Amino acid sequence: MRFFSDNTASACPQILAALAAANHGLARAYGDDEWTMRLDEAFSSFFGTQVRAFAVATGTAANSLSLATLSPPYGAIFAHTEAHIACDECGAPGFFTGGAQLALLEGAHGRLQPDVVAAALAAHPRHLHSVQPAALSLTQATELGTVYRVPELTSLCESAHHGGLKVHMDGARFANAVAFLDCHPGDLSWRAGVDVLSFGATKNGALAAEAVVFFDLSLVRDFELRRKRAGHLLSKSRYVAAQLLAYLEAGLWERNAQRTNTLAQQIGRAAGARLLHPVEANEVFLNLGTAGKASLRNSGFEFYDWGAETSGEARFVVSWDQPEEDVPALCGAVSRL
Amino acid sequence: MRFFSDNTASACPQILAALAAANHGLARAYGDDEWTMRLDEAFSSFFGTQVRAFAVATGTAANSLSLATLSPPYGAIFAHTEAHIACDECGAPGFFTGGAQLALLEGAHGRLQPDVVAAALAAHPRHLHSVQPAALSLTQATELGTVYRVPELTSLCESAHHGGLKVHMDGARFANAVAFLDCHPGDLSWRAGVDVLSFGATKNGALAAEAVVFFDLSLVRDFELRRKRAGHLLSKSRYVAAQLLAYLEAGLWERNAQRTNTLAQQIGRAAGARLLHPVEANEVFLNLGTAGKASLRNSGFEFYDWGAETSGEARFVVSWDQPEEDVPALCGAVSRL
Amino acid sequence: MRFFSDNTASACPQILAALAAANHGLARAYGDDEWTMRLDEAFSSFFGTQVRAFAVATGTAANSLSLATLSPPYGAIFAHTEAHIACDECGAPGFFTGGAQLALLEGAHGRLQPDVVAAALAAHPRHLHSVQPAALSLTQATELGTVYRVPELTSLCESAHHGGLKVHMDGARFANAVAFLDCHPGDLSWRAGVDVLSFGATKNGALAAEAVVFFDLSLVRDFELRRKRAGHLLSKSRYVAAQLLAYLEAGLWERNAQRTNTLAQQIGRAAGARLLHPVEANEVFLNLGTAGKASLRNSGFEFYDWGAETSGEARFVVSWDQPEEDVPALCGAVSRL
Amino acid sequence: MRFFSDNTASACPQILAALAAANHGLARAYGDDEWTMRLDEAFSSFFGTQVRAFAVATGTAANSLSLATLSPPYGAIFAHTEAHIACDECGAPGFFTGGAQLALLEGAHGRLQPDVVAAALAAHPRHLHSVQPAALSLTQATELGTVYRVPELTSLCESAHHGGLKVHMDGARFANAVAFLDCHPGDLSWRAGVDVLSFGATKNGALAAEAVVFFDLSLVRDFELRRKRAGHLLSKSRYVAAQLLAYLEAGLWERNAQRTNTLAQQIGRAAGARLLHPVEANEVFLNLGTAGKASLRNSGFEFYDWGAETSGEARFVVSWDQPEEDVPALCGAVSRL
Repeated sequence: MRFFSDNTASACPQILAALAAANHGLARAYGDDEWTMRLDEAFSSFFGTQVRAFAVATGTAANSLSLATLSPPYGAIFAHTEAHIACDECGAPGFFTGGAQLALLEGAHGRLQPDVVAAALAAHPRHLHSVQPAALSLTQATELGTVYRVPELTSLCESAHHGGLKVHMDGARFANAVAFLDCHPGDLSWRAGVDVLSFGATKNGALAAEAVVFFDLSLVRDFELRRKRAGHLLSKSRYVAAQLLAYLEAGLWERNAQRTNTLAQQIGRAAGARLLHPVEANEVFLNLGTAGKASLRNSGFEFYDWGAETSGEARFVVSWDQPEEDVPALCGAVSRL
Repeated sequence: MRFFSDNTASACPQILAALAAANHGLARAYGDDEWTMRLDEAFSSFFGTQVRAFAVATGTAANSLSLATLSPPYGAIFAHTEAHIACDECGAPGFFTGGAQLALLEGAHGRLQPDVVAAALAAHPRHLHSVQPAALSLTQATELGTVYRVPELTSLCESAHHGGLKVHMDGARFANAVAFLDCHPGDLSWRAGVDVLSFGATKNGALAAEAVVFFDLSLVRDFELRRKRAGHLLSKSRYVAAQLLAYLEAGLWERNAQRTNTLAQQIGRAAGARLLHPVEANEVFLNLGTAGKASLRNSGFEFYDWGAETSGEARFVVSWDQPEEDVPALCGAVSRL
Repeated sequence: MRFFSDNTASACPQILAALAAANHGLARAYGDDEWTMRLDEAFSSFFGTQVRAFAVATGTAANSLSLATLSPPYGAIFAHTEAHIACDECGAPGFFTGGAQLALLEGAHGRLQPDVVAAALAAHPRHLHSVQPAALSLTQATELGTVYRVPELTSLCESAHHGGLKVHMDGARFANAVAFLDCHPGDLSWRAGVDVLSFGATKNGALAAEAVVFFDLSLVRDFELRRKRAGHLLSKSRYVAAQLLAYLEAGLWERNAQRTNTLAQQIGRAAGARLLHPVEANEVFLNLGTAGKASLRNSGFEFYDWGAETSGEARFVVSWDQPEEDVPALCGAVSRL
Repeated sequence: MRFFSDNTASACPQILAALAAANHGLARAYGDDEWTMRLDEAFSSFFGTQVRAFAVATGTAANSLSLATLSPPYGAIFAHTEAHIACDECGAPGFFTGGAQLALLEGAHGRLQPDVVAAALAAHPRHLHSVQPAALSLTQATELGTVYRVPELTSLCESAHHGGLKVHMDGARFANAVAFLDCHPGDLSWRAGVDVLSFGATKNGALAAEAVVFFDLSLVRDFELRRKRAGHLLSKSRYVAAQLLAYLEAGLWERNAQRTNTLAQQIGRAAGARLLHPVEANEVFLNLGTAGKASLRNSGFEFYDWGAETSGEARFVVSWDQPEEDVPALCGAVSRL
């Protein structure tokens, strides 16, 4: 029973059906096709405001291209120490920005505290000898499976804007956050002050499709050139656009996120005191001890060590196509530890 | 009737079928799945030698990541003035290498002449004030629809290696070149001296799949880290690997290339003296005059101006799924000009 | 007798005296000293308009930092094929800009023709697949020892601005150009449309001092951060500023440029038909034949081969401290060939 | 009385005399002069082993060019949170390496603890999703005015080498460290395991001169090209080389370091419990309280706030040409607080 990652999931049947539906005849390349040309409208409708939306194939591309439009090479990008951009992208932000520096901040349960960010921004030097605060990157849902509430987000964005920074949101699991809070997608993005969003679909049911959504439209031209230059403008764009359209318009984003959130919460409840972080999305972090981890593995559960192999901590991620029976099995096994 | 580009084509039914076949159950992410793990073997078999092969989604990624493994930031990359890396990738080689400089050479019909390359390499300074010759990038089939013969290729690679350069081949239309020469894929790559090949599949029937094939295995680790860092390691890698496996193993590469080559040659023959370059792949370049271009457009043919709008030159590309009847229609229209 | 380069010269006694005069007591570091704080005023007075001027130690730094403020990573920088930035800086513009691409144009005697530039800019694609025209870099005096006249410069700058480009001038030998035309420094810079100037002093008598002069003041903040980040902000800035102040205020720039121009013209006149380019600064290019080169070397003259060793062409540069007697000796030797 | 920084100092008379002595006649440019050609020998003699040494004008250049030879773009560079490369160079390591990421570690008194480094290296992931440990950068003397002892250094270098990292030392105040320990320069560099050293001279009496000293000779060619490309190869190299030769051969390094160390220690002793870090070089860190800082400033002492203006902490640096009487004056003023 595989709880490694939502990247191990297959693609939704509706996504494959959308590919098949797009697979007829000759279409203009590089985004001038009818599918891609509908993205702006579809995302504007989804977010309840005028946006520009661009498809890419990976989350690292979405994040790094976004950040490169926000930070000069001498910029500082503020983020949580656990952020994907800091830990899991092989230094991509440094590559795409031409060497911007990450300024990493601690925060319980993967969340940056507004006062911590405000203090860090206030303390950061602005003289010529220092990198210049340029962007705040927030992850929603966070890397530890928690979700920022609207007032927190708003406060974080205000601090950033007050300090002259732009705000990027890594929304690889944005749908899970919206589903958890049962709010409008605009509430977690532009209304809170987000300037550009990496909107994930791959983990939550697409094959390979992420959108970069600009609420600050002035950044678009720079983005488009950077995307092409980075090899992230797909020639047969219709196939990635068709995934995103299906994901939004067939409501896959919500249905899948609700299911994985719900299942993850079941695991969280079963875990009792072993639970390390509140379960607010589709990830569950448990302190199992090394014996507990071994025991679960012997029982056929696959999951990641969190931190060192010897740490006793483990991460379980529920995928949109997780077999239903995996979850009670895991709950039972954890309870019995 | 659309002759803009082979990027306007749909994907082969077999490619979509391969996606559907891969679309079951949970698979390891980031290339540790069973499809991706078969790529090395499939490409080694295809090329008749031990290779390492890596999937990416775009040709620009394949080319630029390849070049970044071959050239230091202070390198010079020799290529034809018409090369895709020079004209059509928004400066991607400069981005991926950290600022390497292109050294562009002329050559009739899109082909670099071995003696021109040899002379350019001999003349290029090696002192500290100059960028250092690092790589030769050849396009096969070329941007003007022609194909290097084996002895030419061998001679070009020998010059490059003699000068301490590595050889990259942009094989966005590699299948067309192999089909045209009716040779073994190894003859146009490692046997001739190519170190790393961008092996295209997208234009010739895939949805979004290119392979970077390393004949020089020492470059692989550097490549893998650069690929991840550039956002070109797909999380659900099975879907891009499955395309490449189908493309190779079902013989799509050959069948599609033969068809488009044949149709393009029909157009070339019909064009008579208007033909600008020999038709050796699936592209046809014609001197139509501005009136001729207008006339064809009025008749419903879509194609690119080649060079300035006022130049009278035009490019026609046959796609793998080009409706059969488009070609005699075009032949007739061109003949009647 | 050394005619290799004006970089082989010593520093003017007045420059060393200025260093000695600045060498007392504790001064604020990194440009907050009294010498550096006078640069803006001194250069504004020199150019007859409000400028910001910054000291760096090398011409490559001045050129590349200037260009990095003018071109995004996806920019195209237009320049002459012989430009120092293209041939003699080991790819520095690519490094400083994050991978901008040079678009090199031919032109007789090292000069870009206004109509050639206008045509190149008009023809350059602006779509996403191409690097975007960003800057025109002109060299004054040129690499072949010639000088743009004011109307040429004005026309070149107009074309650039019309196309949305900014204009950089590599003025490593700017003083020689002003001396040759006997005009106001403003005529060859801001009045003609130059946005940023690399103002050289090292070749013409300083020890190690160049100024980056901004006529477009909006670029200054970006420049200052890039300069620091590139290690080109000197901690004890007073010493580089003191050189520039002496160079301007003691009239060294003019006196030295006039002398070297005059001596170079003597050589040019003696060379007769061997002269390859008009002598308008302190460089002389001669076609000596390989035998002629060997003969001069046997007579104790040192100079660079221009192009290949076998080409028969040679470059002679007169330094500000060239012994007076070297020149008639060279004139005689050349005449006797 | 100025205690801001040793960068506020003038240059030693012997340094200016060396410039004057070098200022005659025509010398080959770009390092082929007789002064530069003596650097390797002079530094090899100084360090007691065969080295290659290269002059640059700034410490940021020395550090960043060194690091760029040690770390690929996807590298991680381990350093202390207070390191100059992290805090005071506007992100230069990111620029020069093409985006390497800093991995910053805490340590009392500016020193990295060997066990902390060993643990961090052991814990750092080596998979494709993470930047790859590439270099350890140590500062000697540290940013907090302390000095690593030989066994500590040796242990740190062993950990680094064991993990496949190379070791860089930022020796902006290397002379102070040698003087403090009264050891051989080799003991603090190659014998301990340092691969490349930024050897500072500017702060300790030169005008603008630092050396990059390679104990690992394999890195030299890469360095030389990067230096040129970064605009840090001085055309009239004799003047920077002459400074370094005088600095080494006239014993300025030792005499000046001993004096500033001694004076700083006097201040440290006078400070009593206000002293924040042991005084082992020429810097003194005091906890004065905001009132104490104001009081000293009113008495005419100039110094930096350390950390926030409101922190009460202050840094005093003794310069090689600090007027003798400044120190007892400061000692008295501090004692009276």
